[in-house]
Amino acid sequence: MKAWQLRQGSTSLDGLYLAEVPKPEPGPDEVLIRVRACSLNYRDQLIPLGQYMGGAADRDITPLSDGAGEVEAVGSAVSRFKVGDRVAGTFFQNWVSGPAHAHAGPALGAPPAKGMLAEYVTLPERGVVPIAQSLSFEEAATLPCAGVTAWNALMEGSPSVGPGRWVAVLGTGGVSLLALQIAKAAGAQVLATSSSDEKLERVKALGADSTINYRTTPDWGAEAVRLTGGIDHVVEVGGQGTLAQSIAAVGFGGEIAFIGVLSREGNASPRDMMFKAARLRGIFVGSALMAERLNAAVDACGIKPVVDRTFNFSDAPAAYDYQSSSALFGKVVIRV
Amino acid sequence: MKAWQLRQGSTSLDGLYLAEVPKPEPGPDEVLIRVRACSLNYRDQLIPLGQYMGGAADRDITPLSDGAGEVEAVGSAVSRFKVGDRVAGTFFQNWVSGPAHAHAGPALGAPPAKGMLAEYVTLPERGVVPIAQSLSFEEAATLPCAGVTAWNALMEGSPSVGPGRWVAVLGTGGVSLLALQIAKAAGAQVLATSSSDEKLERVKALGADSTINYRTTPDWGAEAVRLTGGIDHVVEVGGQGTLAQSIAAVGFGGEIAFIGVLSREGNASPRDMMFKAARLRGIFVGSALMAERLNAAVDACGIKPVVDRTFNFSDAPAAYDYQSSSALFGKVVIRV
Amino acid sequence: MKAWQLRQGSTSLDGLYLAEVPKPEPGPDEVLIRVRACSLNYRDQLIPLGQYMGGAADRDITPLSDGAGEVEAVGSAVSRFKVGDRVAGTFFQNWVSGPAHAHAGPALGAPPAKGMLAEYVTLPERGVVPIAQSLSFEEAATLPCAGVTAWNALMEGSPSVGPGRWVAVLGTGGVSLLALQIAKAAGAQVLATSSSDEKLERVKALGADSTINYRTTPDWGAEAVRLTGGIDHVVEVGGQGTLAQSIAAVGFGGEIAFIGVLSREGNASPRDMMFKAARLRGIFVGSALMAERLNAAVDACGIKPVVDRTFNFSDAPAAYDYQSSSALFGKVVIRV
Amino acid sequence: MKAWQLRQGSTSLDGLYLAEVPKPEPGPDEVLIRVRACSLNYRDQLIPLGQYMGGAADRDITPLSDGAGEVEAVGSAVSRFKVGDRVAGTFFQNWVSGPAHAHAGPALGAPPAKGMLAEYVTLPERGVVPIAQSLSFEEAATLPCAGVTAWNALMEGSPSVGPGRWVAVLGTGGVSLLALQIAKAAGAQVLATSSSDEKLERVKALGADSTINYRTTPDWGAEAVRLTGGIDHVVEVGGQGTLAQSIAAVGFGGEIAFIGVLSREGNASPRDMMFKAARLRGIFVGSALMAERLNAAVDACGIKPVVDRTFNFSDAPAAYDYQSSSALFGKVVIRV
Repeated sequence: MKAWQLRQGSTSLDGLYLAEVPKPEPGPDEVLIRVRACSLNYRDQLIPLGQYMGGAADRDITPLSDGAGEVEAVGSAVSRFKVGDRVAGTFFQNWVSGPAHAHAGPALGAPPAKGMLAEYVTLPERGVVPIAQSLSFEEAATLPCAGVTAWNALMEGSPSVGPGRWVAVLGTGGVSLLALQIAKAAGAQVLATSSSDEKLERVKALGADSTINYRTTPDWGAEAVRLTGGIDHVVEVGGQGTLAQSIAAVGFGGEIAFIGVLSREGNASPRDMMFKAARLRGIFVGSALMAERLNAAVDACGIKPVVDRTFNFSDAPAAYDYQSSSALFGKVVIRV
Repeated sequence: MKAWQLRQGSTSLDGLYLAEVPKPEPGPDEVLIRVRACSLNYRDQLIPLGQYMGGAADRDITPLSDGAGEVEAVGSAVSRFKVGDRVAGTFFQNWVSGPAHAHAGPALGAPPAKGMLAEYVTLPERGVVPIAQSLSFEEAATLPCAGVTAWNALMEGSPSVGPGRWVAVLGTGGVSLLALQIAKAAGAQVLATSSSDEKLERVKALGADSTINYRTTPDWGAEAVRLTGGIDHVVEVGGQGTLAQSIAAVGFGGEIAFIGVLSREGNASPRDMMFKAARLRGIFVGSALMAERLNAAVDACGIKPVVDRTFNFSDAPAAYDYQSSSALFGKVVIRV
Repeated sequence: MKAWQLRQGSTSLDGLYLAEVPKPEPGPDEVLIRVRACSLNYRDQLIPLGQYMGGAADRDITPLSDGAGEVEAVGSAVSRFKVGDRVAGTFFQNWVSGPAHAHAGPALGAPPAKGMLAEYVTLPERGVVPIAQSLSFEEAATLPCAGVTAWNALMEGSPSVGPGRWVAVLGTGGVSLLALQIAKAAGAQVLATSSSDEKLERVKALGADSTINYRTTPDWGAEAVRLTGGIDHVVEVGGQGTLAQSIAAVGFGGEIAFIGVLSREGNASPRDMMFKAARLRGIFVGSALMAERLNAAVDACGIKPVVDRTFNFSDAPAAYDYQSSSALFGKVVIRV
Repeated sequence: MKAWQLRQGSTSLDGLYLAEVPKPEPGPDEVLIRVRACSLNYRDQLIPLGQYMGGAADRDITPLSDGAGEVEAVGSAVSRFKVGDRVAGTFFQNWVSGPAHAHAGPALGAPPAKGMLAEYVTLPERGVVPIAQSLSFEEAATLPCAGVTAWNALMEGSPSVGPGRWVAVLGTGGVSLLALQIAKAAGAQVLATSSSDEKLERVKALGADSTINYRTTPDWGAEAVRLTGGIDHVVEVGGQGTLAQSIAAVGFGGEIAFIGVLSREGNASPRDMMFKAARLRGIFVGSALMAERLNAAVDACGIKPVVDRTFNFSDAPAAYDYQSSSALFGKVVIRV
């Protein structure tokens, strides 16, 4: 079978290569998945550059955490899946339910764990979830990292998002657009930011109630308070200087869901967090149970993830390139 | 001014009489409200019969907990309201925020506290909340007891209702219909029960995803599990034998929000609660903060309370009669 | 090796027999444990009688959920344990963390799952936890079911038990005494009930702040309110008519942790739960993470489980007999 | 009567003067308190310097938020207090229960609200709580700000502190020592930091399980992880560069309770908060209900606040001086 590989020691996208490798066999508690689609996340761009957590890869691995497909075979001890089921892998293979814990990993697609950009993968049953019936494989492949992160940020805190609350999403990447859609499904009002008025028109079409161009309004935190009375849930995906504005934007008793991979500096003072009795909560994707709840919500509420562009399997490097372009709006998908 | 009064010792609706009484003056921390509409709750029928908590009234009082109107004057120490504001009273006059506590009372409209069925009332500032801009006085008057109860049941537990969860509402009284509407606004799916197929059609029109006629399906709890996989939130408003069915209907880790005024017997075994790790939570209306959140949600999500019939002030006893009729669907309002 | 077995179809303790069976080999993700001690729970008495959940056993199985011992070998994929580690099994083999869920089972020692009353057992790594360093094997063997149940009841609700709160424990079985000790370690005050004044003296020696003899004070719920102002956490282990008294005893906003195996009737009215805004929470043992937290707390706070009597492996049936005697005070242990 | 006053526009301790003012009369819902002792907090030093929130005082006011005394008279509408009751004021006069909210103020002792450093004060009933029976007035006067802050930080989050958890307290000021005592009462283990080995010996005597001298170990966060495996609750009272170390010290899923008045800079990167799924929670004292729970816990667990030095009413300025000395260990009290 064919699988994309990231070469050991890679520090650029040139480290990606397409290989012919043996088709895997499922162990007793494993599921063999015929992958049909994968999606990219910001993290997937850092890994080939050797800039993600552990540095450059210490072995050749298959990249990408996010993939969906069909079950082609199951091991003898597998009880929850059968041939033909439509499934996706979970980002953390050992985070089944409950709060985050120290033994959640490995995370798919980062050394030492292989990922999903292959025609077939095997995963232990506990690292697999059914996908929403209402989604295509391409759409379902957008959820394992970005969707579950957005779900965790909005629906797994206390209190969670609900009718009458205000949510702020920053920019138009995958997490932010999925957070926008989940928040609207939950009855909340959404304020979205972007540096592009054209993109702000597109988020309005997706349901955003209020928008701010952060290029023309750099102090958008204060403007957010003026427009909304204070944000209840800020989905802080990081970026140059955003945390200071998120702290300014958050309202009394509000929460900043902090998804910090993009965070490049930290010189924001949390002092105002005290006077507003606000919270900052570190978010690192989520559990298999959260993935199941998200997929159930997608079916129940008719959420359609925004697939910006879809690439063929053989054009995977082009998908990586597009993921870093300024035109990005939502998710980039590779059809397998 | 005119005010309806409930006579001391009353044990029937004949205890209600219309009186000419002095218009009240607001104290320093009080708000004078020109009442424009009131609504009835099941509790309001028990009080004239002397069947509510403390028995028959020990003095003449103005009945009804629920009323909305305009601020006509404010005391010298009042800071949050001004003349002309559209407001409602809170059911518990001293439950501002947080969990229920022992000093929440008095509750409006039950001895010894006067209620809202009068042309004017004075209330302390902390017992007053702004009403939703999108509602008429008649609509807003439906919320203080039934709406806040439904909100508490669905949105103030942990976890609260959200996209992909299943909610069950029992019958078509005020709490149940408002719970249906709040649940739909929050992205949940709703199963509704009634003894009338015609009423079940009406709840479908309001958004119910699934319905059961409990007359033709007495074991509706098992049927609810079959249809939904297990209910996450049962809004248990009580009634003959409903608790046993609610315990059967609730799913793994689910919650029965228990609103027990109607509960006439308790011979349901909670043993299954253990195996399902389910919870039963006693609900007794809610706080001023919950009322504020509900009104904010009503505006944000366009919730329109179902006003079944509206009566004139002079016809108040007819409103009481209609409240106990089998035709009831939603709320009964009295225009003041 | 030797293992006690419960015969298929057993409906009495005569179904227990000692057998010579092959010593198990650990699979790749399994741990081989040299069992050193087991303990009994009320459930373990129901199973040989064919009175537990699924009825009589459909195959011969090794009984008992609770056992502690030493790791003798580990499979190739095991990462958290090594030879010589002191460990115990978890009651639910697939409940790692988070709230209870529908796929937590199997539970050790009930058909179809084998249990711990054998010289050696193999368990998957995820169904094994380290035991407290400060405990002997006999003491550690008392915790997997009764200790984790008590921990879940007191420490995993919201709010959890803490300084200044009141806890009520019913009788002097294993769950109740462990709950007493955990509650005292957490700074709470404890009210204990028993039908024996002599046992009440013994619970006072363990730290109980207040006691009631429920034989001489049948309406002990009201007496509990008089003594404490209302119980914040009732550890309701069931029994004839206890639930009605627990509902009477619980205070405003309090919680009844409901552990219902012993519950034989359910004619208690939950109506008062509403007026007190109280909660009933179904408790069915707990997760591996709760077991780890309990063992950490045992070490940190010096909790010593009460081992009432210890029996030799060959005398296992005598341990079953003693477990049902009225003299029982704490836990019955079998040394393996 | 006599009362200390802070002069309008004060920017130094010279702004404090002792005055003869009329003894206040209680309004209908007010309590007249004969103050017997007050305590100082760091905030009380900033206010005379004009460095607290709103800048220099816009009027002459009585300083200090913390005071305890006896009820000398009650207004006609007061129902929870009677002459002779031992009471304290609450820091926020309108935060009765529940989470922090925007209308909690005024806070005693900061413009425009008068404080407690007077022979008599009147407070509305809702801003008064009973004090622990086991404490003297001097001891009880240490709790309204520092004690309730420590309580909120440890006991009002989710999860709260309990047996087996690790708490870190920074330095030996009032909040930190009370947090140490509350944490020990709740069964937790405590790590304490100080720049003085002599003070570290004193915190060990109060129950600290582990200590670090942050002068000799500037990277104390990493050392804390080495000693404890990761702190579950950091009581972050601020100071030069402490936040970066607190973020390093916090363990997986842990919480930094952030009490930021002392925080002078914010250049700590919260990025690690994400990988540890940790939370930062802004803490600004707490509610009347928290004060009641704290006083109940003090009685139940025998907590004795550490009164470092006690000054006479006429020597109030000396108390202010001592509060800023490096010798400070616990609370500074003024006897009225």
